[in-house]
Amino acid sequence: MTVIKGSDVAKALNAQTAEEIASWNGIVPKAAIIRVGDNPDDISYERGAVKRLESVGIACQLVTLPGDITQQAFLEAFSKVNDDPSVHGILLLRPLPPQLDETPVRNQINPDKDIDGISPINLAKVFSCDDSGFAPCTAKAVMEILDYAGVNLHGKNVAVVGASLVVGRPLSMLMLAREATVTLCHIYTKDVPKECREADIVVVACGVPKLIGEHHISEGTVVIDVGINLDENGKLCGDVDFDAVAPKASLITPVPGGVGAVTTSILASHVVKAARRLTGKENR
Amino acid sequence: MTVIKGSDVAKALNAQTAEEIASWNGIVPKAAIIRVGDNPDDISYERGAVKRLESVGIACQLVTLPGDITQQAFLEAFSKVNDDPSVHGILLLRPLPPQLDETPVRNQINPDKDIDGISPINLAKVFSCDDSGFAPCTAKAVMEILDYAGVNLHGKNVAVVGASLVVGRPLSMLMLAREATVTLCHIYTKDVPKECREADIVVVACGVPKLIGEHHISEGTVVIDVGINLDENGKLCGDVDFDAVAPKASLITPVPGGVGAVTTSILASHVVKAARRLTGKENR
Repeated sequence: MTVIKGSDVAKALNAQTAEEIASWNGIVPKAAIIRVGDNPDDISYERGAVKRLESVGIACQLVTLPGDITQQAFLEAFSKVNDDPSVHGILLLRPLPPQLDETPVRNQINPDKDIDGISPINLAKVFSCDDSGFAPCTAKAVMEILDYAGVNLHGKNVAVVGASLVVGRPLSMLMLAREATVTLCHIYTKDVPKECREADIVVVACGVPKLIGEHHISEGTVVIDVGINLDENGKLCGDVDFDAVAPKASLITPVPGGVGAVTTSILASHVVKAARRLTGKENR
Repeated sequence: MTVIKGSDVAKALNAQTAEEIASWNGIVPKAAIIRVGDNPDDISYERGAVKRLESVGIACQLVTLPGDITQQAFLEAFSKVNDDPSVHGILLLRPLPPQLDETPVRNQINPDKDIDGISPINLAKVFSCDDSGFAPCTAKAVMEILDYAGVNLHGKNVAVVGASLVVGRPLSMLMLAREATVTLCHIYTKDVPKECREADIVVVACGVPKLIGEHHISEGTVVIDVGINLDENGKLCGDVDFDAVAPKASLITPVPGGVGAVTTSILASHVVKAARRLTGKENR
């Protein structure tokens, strides 16, 4: 059994990203991170993202808006960033406070700057197995890990547990594009353990601490854990019971230190993809 | 075993559609059907669609363009229809001749008039399990048949064979929205017979004559056949070997006379949904 460390995957990807930026002779890609309010999770994610982006040579513009901002003021602030030609990529930290509706922003964001894949144009591209757009970073991080580990998806049976629009559904399409057969499981799935046992690869993104145990996994399965939860002792844990599952898995990602460690590196690679296009370095 | 006749499903749906239009006191919904060239399949589909739409009280405007039209002239003709406020729904017969690129039209079509679900906005809505948009008619026809037959999808295992963007993929999302567990199978799937045998419902839309035989189906399975092919004797047949499968199925659709007979009724219901909105009869 091999534990795939997210930091190794991130390191390899960051090196590629930094190398590409270095070859641009002074053009600096820029990301805007929009945060509304002072949610500690948002602040922590923002801090990690800035650190990662800057480390590879991406400039960050932090747009911090008051937590009680009105919808109109929010949309105006968003438009300003969206229309700013010096900004190549936009990350909007979500969920937004309850008084705000994110639908207009999803429809308005320039799809070419939409580095976290929230625009319907990018969702439709993911659904169309068209990789010219941006998939949500977490779904993409799972693919990056599998590629790093040399897992060939062609013809493989995959169980994806959790059918969210940010992970499970886009991931199932990214995997379909690689010719995997995906069963998308969720809370109403009759027999999740059976679906997992019959899969070559199990990806879990359902937000239930340690849901996936020893009886879910067949010998030699590849297990990717997207969950980030607190266990009964207040310790970080995934959706997979790592200690129970690891001995049977051929490859497994830990939590913390797995998928989560790769997400901001994907974000950085998306900023570069966006900047490459917006600065005319690539014809679509 | 019950054979579900598409004509029965269509009849029930048409009655609802006609009744709604009749209640509109003289407002007549209008569909534009755009055909490029004289492909016999297109002409035949157009004839059937016009007959169906007119029978429920929908006006049809036929826009017939020369098969050798240039991209620019095609886009101009399309824009005229798209911008015409008297047109509530647009059906573009596809595939287009090889000199035309349909991408700009997909991006340009008013999503509120997009009765066959080709716009990325509508694709993204299907992917988001948001039923405010338009799903592709054939995928929707499968759902209509299951509803007519009283098949509850909640918690059911479904094998969808064929992962196209017009049927398999959108259908898998429509079924997910009803809480089914879907395995999306395709040409690289390791063991299609096993996936089908383990499913409560099998939907086949892969374009391979009589691919699904007796050994694919468990006793009591619901079988929906989307395929329309010619068999070795030049006779219409589906992707399911009907005679071999029917004895084991609990419900089955025939070909011809199954899903295909429902598609234009879905189209009609979509024109009414579009007209309802565009004439302000419904607030979104």
